[in-house]
Formats: sequence, C-alpha cells, structure tokens
Amino acid sequence: MRDFHSVLNEHRSIRKYKKTPVKKELIQKILDAGTRASSSGNMQPYSIIVTTDEDLKKELLPLHFNQSMVMDAPVLVTFCADFNRMRKWLKLNQAPENFDNLMSYLIGMIDATLASQNVALAAEAEGLGICFMGTTLASNKEISKVLKLPSHCVPVVGFSLGYPDEMPEKRDRLPLDGIVHYETYKDYSDTRIEEIYHQKETEGMKRYQKDPKLREMMREGGAENLAQVYTKLKYTRESHLNYSKDVFDCLEEAGFLHFQ
Amino acid sequence: MRDFHSVLNEHRSIRKYKKTPVKKELIQKILDAGTRASSSGNMQPYSIIVTTDEDLKKELLPLHFNQSMVMDAPVLVTFCADFNRMRKWLKLNQAPENFDNLMSYLIGMIDATLASQNVALAAEAEGLGICFMGTTLASNKEISKVLKLPSHCVPVVGFSLGYPDEMPEKRDRLPLDGIVHYETYKDYSDTRIEEIYHQKETEGMKRYQKDPKLREMMREGGAENLAQVYTKLKYTRESHLNYSKDVFDCLEEAGFLHFQ
Repeated sequence: MRDFHSVLNEHRSIRKYKKTPVKKELIQKILDAGTRASSSGNMQPYSIIVTTDEDLKKELLPLHFNQSMVMDAPVLVTFCADFNRMRKWLKLNQAPENFDNLMSYLIGMIDATLASQNVALAAEAEGLGICFMGTTLASNKEISKVLKLPSHCVPVVGFSLGYPDEMPEKRDRLPLDGIVHYETYKDYSDTRIEEIYHQKETEGMKRYQKDPKLREMMREGGAENLAQVYTKLKYTRESHLNYSKDVFDCLEEAGFLHFQ
Repeated sequence: MRDFHSVLNEHRSIRKYKKTPVKKELIQKILDAGTRASSSGNMQPYSIIVTTDEDLKKELLPLHFNQSMVMDAPVLVTFCADFNRMRKWLKLNQAPENFDNLMSYLIGMIDATLASQNVALAAEAEGLGICFMGTTLASNKEISKVLKLPSHCVPVVGFSLGYPDEMPEKRDRLPLDGIVHYETYKDYSDTRIEEIYHQKETEGMKRYQKDPKLREMMREGGAENLAQVYTKLKYTRESHLNYSKDVFDCLEEAGFLHFQ
C-alpha cells in the first residue's frame, strides 16, 4: 500500500490498462472506503454501479464518446445520485417521501462525488489506475437506460478502473495562488489572468504542437491558441447548450424537478 | 503523518475545535493536494475561499444556520464552481466565452467537490478535523454576497477546519451491498429495504432516545421513527422546495442558466 502523501499528490489519469482483471474482494475494499466519505445528514443518497460485462460496456461505449478505455479497462464504475432507495424506505415507514426536487439532486450529486474521490484514491493506493469520464454527466439520460436506473436515480460521475499500462507525466495545474482567495474573492485583472495561465498555455501548446493530429485539429478548427482550443474545438457553445438540455431533460424524467 | 488506510476509513465529522490556529503554510499544503484531484479537461473551474476573519464568520454564521462551529473553528473553507476566471482568460485570447449554462455549473460543481474531498483527506492526514456544511449549497445566494463572488462563480461545498477537540464515534453506514449494484441497477423489494436500513434505524433511534432534546423534538414534530425524523423534522418538503428555488435563483443570477 502506497503512502498517503504520494497517493494524494501523484494522481495521473490512466487511459491504458493491462488485461489483468480486478478481483471482486479488491473492488469491494475500495468501494467500502468510498462509503466513509462525508454524507449530508448521513443519508448516503447514492448508488454505485460496477460494470464489467462486455456487452454492457459495448452499449456504454458510444455514450462515453467511444473512448477506447471503456472497452480496455476491466471495470467501469458509475456513481449515481440516488434517492430511490431512501424514498422506498420513507414510504415503508409512513414518512413523507420528498427528495424529488433540484436541491435533492444536488445533494445526491455532491455525496456521490465525494464518495467517488475516496474510491479513486483507495484504488490508486492499491496500485490501480482510474480516469474520470465527464461523459457520465453529458450522457446521463442514455446511461440511465443502459444501467436500468429507476426514477430519482441518475448518473453523476464515473471512471474506468484497472491496472495501469502507462505512466503519463503529471498534468500541469494552475498556480495555487491563482485559485485560492483569502477572506473574500479578489477578482482578477488582465495582467493577473495572464500570469495565472502562462504556464498552462505554454505546456498546452507544446502538447498540441508535438502531436500532428492535434495540430491538424487546430488548423481545421481555426484555433490559434489554447483558449481557442477549449471553446472553438472542445467545449463549443452549441455542445454545452445541448448537454445542458439533455441533463435538464434527464433530471425532469427522473423526477428531480418539482418546484412545488 | 497518518497512514493512508486509516485516513480514508477513519473519518469523523469534527464539530468541536481547539483554539489553536492553523498555520498558513499548512493550509497551503492541504489546498495544494486539492488541486491534484481530477478536473474535467484540466480546466480547474473552481476557486477556494479561506475565511478566518471573525467579522466575516459572523456574517456567515446565520447562513450556516447558526452552527456554533462556524465561530469556533479557526478556518472555514468554501469551494466554489468558478468559470469567471476561465472566461476572463478566454476573452483575453479572443476565444468564445461560453460556460454560462447548466452543464458548466455542474462540471464546476463536480470539480470543486472532488478537490474538496482531497483537501479534507489531506487535512485529516495532518491531524486536522473537518465538518462539511450542506448549508453552503442551501445558502449559496447569500454566501455569494458575503464572499463577494463575481458572476459565473457560486459556492458548492464547504467545511469548518481546525484541530479536533472531540473524537466522536464513527457514524454508521448502510451495508455496502445495499449501495453497490453489479452490472445494472437491481431495484429494491420492501424486504430488502428493511434489511438495508435495519442497523441505521436501530442506531439512529438509540441516538434520539438517549438525548432528551432530540426526544422532545420527535414528540413535538409527531415523528415516530427515524424515517419520519428525516422528512417530518429535518428535510421537510417545504424547506427543500425553498432551497431548490433559492439555488435556482442563485444560478440564474450568477449567469449559469442560459439555454440558448
């Protein structure tokens, strides 16, 4: 088992995995560490779906935008905000069911996310690797169907899991003092923004320039700098508006949007 | 520094703190561990506000529902979903600003929450204690004002931080197999719900019966079991609907609700 400091500070997202399966006992152990994370009112309004079946993974593949690790990683773990279980318990005890509104979804989302980070760290402490997939949120409506989620239960975050077959470099991060504010928020001047993003721009552009495919993407998309890569290529206005609508629909369908 | 397994599995929420301040170098060290958490597209769309000033804490106190630890803990840490910084960077680089929609808020929320759990664990590894405050979300609109948050930046999760002056028992958790589903979700029968919640009910009712104030609260509120404590006393339909409206208003005001 690796020491705490190295686990917490040496995270890399792992996208290439060995074929070695992950034993069920080990999966259980790291999931158990997840449940020790803080939970609002100790309600634990989340469920964790562990998927290893090839056919299910094939169904999930396009919903995770065809990232090859969906098939290559032995395990996919999906953390869902889940008030279905609790509502059944409430009903059995003649208690008002509630938890069918935005606040409940957000509470479930926070608790599922806290648990997921504990599981990720427990996995890394055991020599496993993970890579979070933001597509879990973007495709939450369709993933709900594949994983047969009931109402009041929706996917929030998820990751691939397995033994690493790569050791990528640690990713750059913004300087800490660009993210932390003491007492109250101090808004950023243009000069300050340039300072904070300087290293990110340099390292980001190096990555893009080194890779002929990425270079071609920039040329085709008319992106001249890293900032433009983000919103002209990766996260366009149109795509984010579409995801927003999909997520909203999913929440409505799952029964999380009652306002009265 | 404590070992990894014990940090991950021995979490307790700490509500009583020693008066000892937390040194700035130590705060910086644990916040830095936060930034090593995974981040969608490595955007780090969050800011961390560290509050130690007594007057600011007094302003925050009612927004955190007058929990005494707000004043007693030497530090409050508030994690915000923040696209303000990134949008300024985009603008400076002639890139579309985007990130003014629900999807962006939720991505920021996930990343802020992942970072917060890393910081919580790093703190606990250093012998500090924390207690998450769900009121950070419930009062996000008013807290935004006190912390002077700009648009596209809203509070998500927060906790008190300091040296523990108590060592509460570990809280009960639902059995792991009540939370984990293999391959797809298996919905719960009534019998299964009773099994899963049995220990929680027993331990919960023991806590309520032992404490005269809690016992009186149950009697007054007409709550006959733990389930009814949850939704007749703690999380009523009315309160959750009000929070939902407040959170929705806050997101709208912060510019996160564009749908076209």
